[in-house]
Amino acid sequence: MKARDSGGKPREYRMSVRAESAEATGERIVDAMLTRFADTPYERIRLDDVAADAGVAVQTVIRRFGGKPGLMTTVVERELGRIAAAREAAAQASVAATVEALVEHYEVYGALILKTYSEAPLVPGLVDLAARGRAYHVDWCRRTFEQHLDPSLDGATQRLRLAQIVAVCDATTWRILRADGGLTAAETTTALRAFLAPLLP
Amino acid sequence: MKARDSGGKPREYRMSVRAESAEATGERIVDAMLTRFADTPYERIRLDDVAADAGVAVQTVIRRFGGKPGLMTTVVERELGRIAAAREAAAQASVAATVEALVEHYEVYGALILKTYSEAPLVPGLVDLAARGRAYHVDWCRRTFEQHLDPSLDGATQRLRLAQIVAVCDATTWRILRADGGLTAAETTTALRAFLAPLLP
Repeated sequence: MKARDSGGKPREYRMSVRAESAEATGERIVDAMLTRFADTPYERIRLDDVAADAGVAVQTVIRRFGGKPGLMTTVVERELGRIAAAREAAAQASVAATVEALVEHYEVYGALILKTYSEAPLVPGLVDLAARGRAYHVDWCRRTFEQHLDPSLDGATQRLRLAQIVAVCDATTWRILRADGGLTAAETTTALRAFLAPLLP
Repeated sequence: MKARDSGGKPREYRMSVRAESAEATGERIVDAMLTRFADTPYERIRLDDVAADAGVAVQTVIRRFGGKPGLMTTVVERELGRIAAAREAAAQASVAATVEALVEHYEVYGALILKTYSEAPLVPGLVDLAARGRAYHVDWCRRTFEQHLDPSLDGATQRLRLAQIVAVCDATTWRILRADGGLTAAETTTALRAFLAPLLP
């Protein structure tokens, strides 16, 4: 062992460098899968290409992630964490400011969110993660907007309003306004605010 | 030829029976594919199973439809026609009646519409059909609701309102209210009417 420790650095430090490098390799593989997923259906992604993009052997990918489904769920778990952090930051004091931040959020993450929901049934393990994502969205809407609901409304109406808010704030509504409606991000913000205004007077 | 025409029936009549039977077989295969597609991702559907469901040899399916993508696009073309016919019938004189008919329409076709959009990128030929479906939806919204828009609005606001109407009337909004919001069909109708009321005063 002495010979391998040559170079004057303590063994512990070298282990840490090795761990850091393994971590960086893992992140690079996850990044490569995320990039491929952005414009390729999951079923068409070849692990060989992902490995090549990350500059590793395909065996390295398999050893670390177990295969394509394992890598894909790792990608989605990491991105779900990032998306949730961004969504928490989007919740502002006023409804108007929150809607603007939400549209900015979807400009970055909307396409990824919708593609993940769309393809979840084809990826083992992804249906549960997608359901967790939807539950998070519903909970975020409740936490962000419940305080602005008219407290004199009966329970059934409150439940209806919250369901409407969840629908308005969905990534799909953003996509339809932007893509089918041909609206700009600013016009989309205006449209979403107009939807919420009568619900949160 | 004389011998084959035995049975006393004129040749023309027999041809027509044969054509009718071929037509019925084709419909049965399309029905079988549609049934499988209702609960199985396209990529997981085996043509052998579809053929067995329809009571024909897989070679018959391949001869008639060219293969799985050809059969799938035939299914979607047929259903698009049915969906468009049902949507035309859903357009009523009043906005309130139209919304109720639209929700009933989605109770029947909503799941199929959303699954088709979702899986279109995986099926050769289906992206174009899905785009045609979206264009039809946008056009239906314009034809059905434009007459109710305030004519004194400027062009930009009219465009914004139409984009909002397209989003409200999308199958996804119905699904989010029903599934994520846990609303009944009647409550969903109420929620959609509330969205449209300020847009179509």
